[in-house]
Amino acid sequence: MSGKETRSGRVVRTLKVDLGDRSYPVELGVDTLAGAGKAIARCAPSSRAFVVTVPPVSRRYSGVLQRSLRVAGYRVHRVIVPDGDASKNPRQLSKLWDELIRCGADRSTPVVALGGGMVGDLAGFAAASYLRGVPFIQVPTTILAMVDASIGGKVAVNLPQGKNLVGAFYQPRLVWIDTGTLRSLPVRERAAGFAEIIKSAAIWDAAFFERLEREAERLMDLDPKVLIPTLERACAIKAEVVSQDEREAGLRQLLNFGHTVGHAIEKLGRYRGLLHGEAVAVGMLIAARKSEELGLSPAGTAERIRSLALRFGLPSELPNHPRNAYLAALKVDKKMSDSKIRFVVLRGIGRAETVPLTPREVLSASRCR
Amino acid sequence: MSGKETRSGRVVRTLKVDLGDRSYPVELGVDTLAGAGKAIARCAPSSRAFVVTVPPVSRRYSGVLQRSLRVAGYRVHRVIVPDGDASKNPRQLSKLWDELIRCGADRSTPVVALGGGMVGDLAGFAAASYLRGVPFIQVPTTILAMVDASIGGKVAVNLPQGKNLVGAFYQPRLVWIDTGTLRSLPVRERAAGFAEIIKSAAIWDAAFFERLEREAERLMDLDPKVLIPTLERACAIKAEVVSQDEREAGLRQLLNFGHTVGHAIEKLGRYRGLLHGEAVAVGMLIAARKSEELGLSPAGTAERIRSLALRFGLPSELPNHPRNAYLAALKVDKKMSDSKIRFVVLRGIGRAETVPLTPREVLSASRCR
Repeated sequence: MSGKETRSGRVVRTLKVDLGDRSYPVELGVDTLAGAGKAIARCAPSSRAFVVTVPPVSRRYSGVLQRSLRVAGYRVHRVIVPDGDASKNPRQLSKLWDELIRCGADRSTPVVALGGGMVGDLAGFAAASYLRGVPFIQVPTTILAMVDASIGGKVAVNLPQGKNLVGAFYQPRLVWIDTGTLRSLPVRERAAGFAEIIKSAAIWDAAFFERLEREAERLMDLDPKVLIPTLERACAIKAEVVSQDEREAGLRQLLNFGHTVGHAIEKLGRYRGLLHGEAVAVGMLIAARKSEELGLSPAGTAERIRSLALRFGLPSELPNHPRNAYLAALKVDKKMSDSKIRFVVLRGIGRAETVPLTPREVLSASRCR
Repeated sequence: MSGKETRSGRVVRTLKVDLGDRSYPVELGVDTLAGAGKAIARCAPSSRAFVVTVPPVSRRYSGVLQRSLRVAGYRVHRVIVPDGDASKNPRQLSKLWDELIRCGADRSTPVVALGGGMVGDLAGFAAASYLRGVPFIQVPTTILAMVDASIGGKVAVNLPQGKNLVGAFYQPRLVWIDTGTLRSLPVRERAAGFAEIIKSAAIWDAAFFERLEREAERLMDLDPKVLIPTLERACAIKAEVVSQDEREAGLRQLLNFGHTVGHAIEKLGRYRGLLHGEAVAVGMLIAARKSEELGLSPAGTAERIRSLALRFGLPSELPNHPRNAYLAALKVDKKMSDSKIRFVVLRGIGRAETVPLTPREVLSASRCR
């Protein structure tokens, strides 16, 4: 990429998520937050805008975003929800509904999610359900949300029984990615974001995986020369998969690589243990080992994933819970169809498929007690 | 219609709701409930089925339906929710989610709504949101649900602030109409159902309206010779409008004729006063009078609606609440876009359109204090 293209305040890349009359653009740039209002006004004109965010993001970025919305003609209502995945629950959802009613939001009012995946999922389900659906805009401020959560329209809240058990497929009108917001992202969350990028490469694009192997350290430093093309490629993979299978009938399941065990880890840690991306990193490793065990993937595949993940500072050990606890957690996994899990395995780096496995079979390749 | 076509236990009419890859059939027949399981198994194969119903319907019909599901290979889980529109709330929704998890429902498990519009709306939103959407089947047992609620995919629950404030557009896989179930429907609910049929005729089909004027008494007697073609035409109108405008961007709003004021009436009666159809009957009258007042509809239009509604035993007077209460109730109407309501008016019997009106203007044609 040329220096010009990474100059501040410009959208340097536009991707399209192609879903017929539900298509939408993903706009990537550096320090572009002040331009978001104008872009939102083009795709969701209304007199009001409803911004959902969390305290740390709000402190840094909601001033700029709200100003840009006001300049674009919106009266802005901001709601701050407590930080952390625990806020992705029916009670917070209900609070958002109440706030939407209180501020007089109507069918034209855009709901703008400013923050990480939790904010996007929660605000997205509120947008999907309020008045049976109002315009939804994603302004992701974490790597994870940029390359994964914000693209594809999966929104949900958790129930005490499991993660993302209720939600919707609801596409945003626009995804506005300002990589400038990543500078304030804690290093651990940065790494967790790269876990989803490793995942995309592992299931879809061997050359991209090799690029990650070459650039891991520069990526962790957020060097824009490598960061922007990496985010772009990861977004494009997600967009490509989603375009071909919006409602997760088949292909899209591949994006769940590492997520079956990842979700179980998060659940057993009561969503206060490993971060989502960290849990997925461990889950990928177990799935890659299973792929080798089943003879689907060449020996050494799991090791390549492990050593790349380690360079990003990601964990590789399954947290210490009883095997039975893992089995029980896997049983409420929503990818389960008639008691078998459609488990995502690799056919080597860059190619994935699903195989039906019982929870017990899933765990056989782990060193779980 | 020939006698053969109304013979018991046969589907005599199949309509298609045309929505591309979300299209589905509406199967109309007399005493066909025992055939539902087989039809459901064709469009939603799974090892489990989840039936939602209310006590009076359950007593009469869930035995037959459950048997037919079992014969078709399902293990059946039935949940009974309390009768009445008050059950259409987030708490009952949450209970259905819990039951779905408890019985091990997965993405293939059909949720079958057996009952009136409340059951369909509540079970439908549970089906739309559980695991981001599982197959949904409508088995309506009231006229209202047959011709209106079960077709078109609008599902929702009420909030304390208003009716249907949160929900989804979520299409069923199949609508199975057995008119035999109407024999046990209380006369008042029967009439309320015909209110929605009058509405369909009033906005869309003058000849159908004239047929209703000829057949009102025979329809109230549920004479199958006139009942089946009438339900068929009403379903077809709904299907036609929905096919052209699934997400209520324009045309579909016409189906809200009578509903703006109708919803306000229901809300002020705390959903324990007039039935939905009765409230809509009064709402249609006010909207028809407004249409005349605006010079859009010839004089006498409102009177034709009033006298037809009266023959079905429907009310024509606005319940006695303060004008300000009506104004406040109209303000949270979800059809409101930037403080004007898109109010449905008639251009004579058989033709409707929307005009933007303030709540105050809506009420000017009523005799509200």
